[in-house]
Amino acid sequence: MSSIFTKIIKGEIPSYKIAEDDHFYAFLDINPNAKGHTLCVPKKEEDKIFDLEESTYAALMLFSRKVAIALEKAIPCKRVGVAVVGLEVPHVHVHLIPLNDMKEMTFNHKVSLSRDEFEATAAKIRAVLQS
Amino acid sequence: MSSIFTKIIKGEIPSYKIAEDDHFYAFLDINPNAKGHTLCVPKKEEDKIFDLEESTYAALMLFSRKVAIALEKAIPCKRVGVAVVGLEVPHVHVHLIPLNDMKEMTFNHKVSLSRDEFEATAAKIRAVLQS
Repeated sequence: MSSIFTKIIKGEIPSYKIAEDDHFYAFLDINPNAKGHTLCVPKKEEDKIFDLEESTYAALMLFSRKVAIALEKAIPCKRVGVAVVGLEVPHVHVHLIPLNDMKEMTFNHKVSLSRDEFEATAAKIRAVLQS
Repeated sequence: MSSIFTKIIKGEIPSYKIAEDDHFYAFLDINPNAKGHTLCVPKKEEDKIFDLEESTYAALMLFSRKVAIALEKAIPCKRVGVAVVGLEVPHVHVHLIPLNDMKEMTFNHKVSLSRDEFEATAAKIRAVLQS
């Protein structure tokens, strides 16, 4: 069965898309630790990040870097934090989290955004990526 | 002034060393989220990970991958988590955390190890790296 992220990548489940190339897809986390919290995912399903081929892993981290640099410009924050956990969804995902405070790294602190806020946030990040 | 991590790399402050090459250094976090929690650090001081040159960033992530694969073999865990925060020490460091539970990613849950336990843990990980 396809993972929830595969369904998002295929458009079967809607997402606030940030970026996409042949191998990777980035979209806003729907239950964010902070505004702009983004997930970067390989299109090919793999459970654990360190089980990816070395070249795929390196490419995912470089894709994530591009998104993170745009995030840092688009969203007011001290810096962009990175987390890879994967205990819940068995499909590799790199969390990129605009940080102003340590609590935003804990996954215990969540923020609520309206649909309009999600859309405006995604549009802002995409605009930086395309500039 | 040198960061605390530069002092560790230079041996001015002792550490439980895991691995080292020309550009990077890995050692056990002295205030670990879980047994085997390791920090991977570039020898050249930089504050924010996404300010590293693209090639240095990619090399750091590949160095971290090697250490993570050894960690996963050496330490009983479901998988190895990754975190980059940097709100405290202004010298890039990649946290690699052997995970059995989400709480080990929160930085609010800490474990205490004796000096002997730190040494035995480091020796175990180094043995896998050298095998």
